[in-house]
Amino acid sequence: MEGVHSTSVKGTGVVAGIAYAPAVWVRPRPELPKAGATVPAGEREAEYERFVAAADLVSERLLARSAHVEGSASEVLKATAGMVADRGWRKAARKAVNSGHPAENATVEATDKFVTMFEAAGGVMAERTTDLKDIRDRVLAELRGEEEPGLPEVDGEAVLFADDLSPADTATLDTDHIVALVTELGGPTSHTAIIARQLNLPCIVAVGSAISSIPAGEKVLIDGAMGTITMDTDPEASAERVRESRERAAVVAQWRGPAQTRDGHRVQLLANVAAGNAARVAAEGQAEGIGLYRTEMSFLSASEEPSVDEQARIYRKVFDAFPDSKVVIRTLDAGSDKPIAYATMTVEENPALGVRGLRIANSNEPLLTRQLDAIAQAAEGRGEGATTWVMAPMVATAREAKWFAGLCRERGLIAGAMIEVPAAALMADKLMPHLDFVSIGTNDLTQYTMAADRLSPQLAYLTDPWQPAVLRLIRHTCLIGHDTQTPVGVCGEAAADPMLACVLTGLGVDSLSAASTALPGVGAQLADVDLETCKKAAELALESVGAAAAREAVRELLQG
Amino acid sequence: MEGVHSTSVKGTGVVAGIAYAPAVWVRPRPELPKAGATVPAGEREAEYERFVAAADLVSERLLARSAHVEGSASEVLKATAGMVADRGWRKAARKAVNSGHPAENATVEATDKFVTMFEAAGGVMAERTTDLKDIRDRVLAELRGEEEPGLPEVDGEAVLFADDLSPADTATLDTDHIVALVTELGGPTSHTAIIARQLNLPCIVAVGSAISSIPAGEKVLIDGAMGTITMDTDPEASAERVRESRERAAVVAQWRGPAQTRDGHRVQLLANVAAGNAARVAAEGQAEGIGLYRTEMSFLSASEEPSVDEQARIYRKVFDAFPDSKVVIRTLDAGSDKPIAYATMTVEENPALGVRGLRIANSNEPLLTRQLDAIAQAAEGRGEGATTWVMAPMVATAREAKWFAGLCRERGLIAGAMIEVPAAALMADKLMPHLDFVSIGTNDLTQYTMAADRLSPQLAYLTDPWQPAVLRLIRHTCLIGHDTQTPVGVCGEAAADPMLACVLTGLGVDSLSAASTALPGVGAQLADVDLETCKKAAELALESVGAAAAREAVRELLQG
Repeated sequence: MEGVHSTSVKGTGVVAGIAYAPAVWVRPRPELPKAGATVPAGEREAEYERFVAAADLVSERLLARSAHVEGSASEVLKATAGMVADRGWRKAARKAVNSGHPAENATVEATDKFVTMFEAAGGVMAERTTDLKDIRDRVLAELRGEEEPGLPEVDGEAVLFADDLSPADTATLDTDHIVALVTELGGPTSHTAIIARQLNLPCIVAVGSAISSIPAGEKVLIDGAMGTITMDTDPEASAERVRESRERAAVVAQWRGPAQTRDGHRVQLLANVAAGNAARVAAEGQAEGIGLYRTEMSFLSASEEPSVDEQARIYRKVFDAFPDSKVVIRTLDAGSDKPIAYATMTVEENPALGVRGLRIANSNEPLLTRQLDAIAQAAEGRGEGATTWVMAPMVATAREAKWFAGLCRERGLIAGAMIEVPAAALMADKLMPHLDFVSIGTNDLTQYTMAADRLSPQLAYLTDPWQPAVLRLIRHTCLIGHDTQTPVGVCGEAAADPMLACVLTGLGVDSLSAASTALPGVGAQLADVDLETCKKAAELALESVGAAAAREAVRELLQG
Repeated sequence: MEGVHSTSVKGTGVVAGIAYAPAVWVRPRPELPKAGATVPAGEREAEYERFVAAADLVSERLLARSAHVEGSASEVLKATAGMVADRGWRKAARKAVNSGHPAENATVEATDKFVTMFEAAGGVMAERTTDLKDIRDRVLAELRGEEEPGLPEVDGEAVLFADDLSPADTATLDTDHIVALVTELGGPTSHTAIIARQLNLPCIVAVGSAISSIPAGEKVLIDGAMGTITMDTDPEASAERVRESRERAAVVAQWRGPAQTRDGHRVQLLANVAAGNAARVAAEGQAEGIGLYRTEMSFLSASEEPSVDEQARIYRKVFDAFPDSKVVIRTLDAGSDKPIAYATMTVEENPALGVRGLRIANSNEPLLTRQLDAIAQAAEGRGEGATTWVMAPMVATAREAKWFAGLCRERGLIAGAMIEVPAAALMADKLMPHLDFVSIGTNDLTQYTMAADRLSPQLAYLTDPWQPAVLRLIRHTCLIGHDTQTPVGVCGEAAADPMLACVLTGLGVDSLSAASTALPGVGAQLADVDLETCKKAAELALESVGAAAAREAVRELLQG
């Protein structure tokens, strides 16, 4: 298809789809100012005015941009604009200018002060420090008359290239023009990949240093399934591939659940949500219910544990979005990258291998039982056909499964466990007799099976849910699930990958839970294949030597 | 056996053996002084004299104690005494006194200064900060006329109780009197457990808060295999159990290799070493060779990478201790808890899941090939019957195994891999065709399989090599090893546990490598059982619901 002289660079394809457009690069962050000269006392008022003018301009631009986007992206932009207008921040800058510092340095000082405060506050506040630094860089660039850093304004279509994308970058992503994402770093579970999946943008991550061989402005053909970026392709052939891909997207958009293979094998498609609004969005789509309700947010955003009534009120918002359906709610998964001051350990050498998830309840069972009480209270009087399933994160042993299930059943709740610790999969025969269901969390299961931090950009080649080692643990879990008549779901990013969804179906997984926007792609792919092909795909993946070989073998089977 | 009114507390037994003696507690560390009153100028000379007198006394006491112990313990004590006499440290204290601070505060200030310097130096120096703080506490106690902190002086026999033991504590352990160790924290791979195994002292760790129910002076019966601490036992029956245990110890002391089961099934017993002197000690014992030569020390103790010749010189010292035997050498396992400034990443969220072991060579292959060159150079001209096996740590995929084996074979070296990442065990069928042998590192394999930091005292109940999940991965590895005729060894702490050694033998492990002092206990136990019993023990352990149940089932089988 591509011309003889075309050259290709390969990364890890994480969202399928074809795009063909010029490459644009995220503009680099400005350098921070050196300790500057002192501004004479008489010029300080003017210097502060210079700061205010720059900050106002940045704030206006963000607000203007917020009018062009929708939903949470608009909210993020408005919130960021609000931070630029913040009186406390401006006061801190004024103070710095008054003591003689130039506007650039005052911007940095005021920001540093707030970053320190936010970090000390922890939790959700600490996550906002990226936004603060983003504001700082925009104001700095404005003060210097440089181009605004971060995402470029794009006229026609473009493929966005970056080392990695920050939450602030992705919130302001101009989806009218950006048709694909390519990053040097990241992995299948990185922030970029998750956002691309939500926006359904073809996406390739972990390209490595070869990414620098692609100059800005060069027209590139992106294959998000194959993970290839090709230059110098035939323009007509490339446009044809984009057309085919759009036709496919139209098919996906038309797809209606419930999901089944071509020969009628049912697979339940469920949504991952973290709050009521996401659940309402999911209910408008093709989700048959909620497969993973993460309850951390209600704990992270409070300075102390919410009361049982308060928790029940929050949970009920999600239950109400699916009044007659299945909702799987996960108990608090604090610790690791989600520390909660009043619940988790302060310092751990390896928080991902630390006291997190259910383990917190070892020394604080009331925290767990209060949550279970709240869940039971919220689930009371749900509609006919509604089921409420409760599962614990980070279960490692049969003893933990039994203990957790006991606490659930005392409250009349259906009890399950996440399978995300390798031991839980290996010991499934001992865990499942205590449980009503299990749900495989592929992100963490991959992290531990490969002994590679899922957030480490250097190890993205390992933390790939296509790793046959991980698929073998999933197969084992499904076999035991079948033997013990225990439903087995998957609720990691793996469930959002249409090809991998075929493999999981072939392995015997009963339900797939992912971002609700990813479900039509999965459903449409499943409708295209029969169960026998899924089983064949599973066999091919299990017997591959590595993740890339597994992906390639299944792609050939399904598309070849 | 115990009286009707006896009460028991249970922990994790990590070194078998029976002891019966009064409990003694490690004395608590003194509180640090508050910012003190100013010493009038005229009294400062006398104040410094007070400091010198206390420091001299502490130094003398440490030296006197060093005369009562042997080998490395004596060296540690002499080195510590030397630090108390250090001119730089005393000068720093003098400076603090001269500026008006009392001797107590001056002691703390001088120590803090050195701690900061040592930490900045990193590596082995950073490890010495525990010793510095130990000195500080001893001098502080002396200045206040309090009892010396840390290990108490003991007249008769005693069982030592502590929250956890520091390296300095264990070096000064009075092995004439201390007959067993019990700690509140720690796990089977904690420092305390490793030292107890070297000293062959019955040891129980991870007792938890129940440990506080045991008052100092109370006579306790310790069963290191069962993990029980029992009070109010019948004195005669208890003494009888100690006698039996000593008879057993005598049998162990008499044991001579090579190891085999009662019915003649050979199991190779090898030693874990980190340097030439430990290898020479091992050669005087029952080890048939070296099963794990950790090469980190030569890198950790240098500020830059040692040259190929220098490395070869160091490695040859270990080879020379076993001129005609097998030596298994592991390439640099830097990263995680063994950072090396010039080789490893500076900051990682979860270093144990980070760029460590073989992964460092992804971006620095010359560091690895230089080491392989040095190993090949050191192995040249070894004696007849000698074999040199080289293995990589943290191999996760078949591709990594192939790459590493290729580099080894280019240099004529026999190539293997550690099996310590769960994926490596799960994918053994794909890895082994590239390898000449594998060695299972049970410490890290357990850490990753259970997703629990091996150094976390709160998670010691999970990081136990008796976990059936871990044993199942070992069984799978052995089965594939048998199919592909690839020798399978075990070189974690699991190999030092005589009962677990029977299980590993039953699972089909060909060689066991542990601290050389642990080998006679393992050999004597293997001589007592036949292979069929080992297989039965393996089956029982594999089918247990958890680590404690596995240990108990096998104990019942072996001890009747």
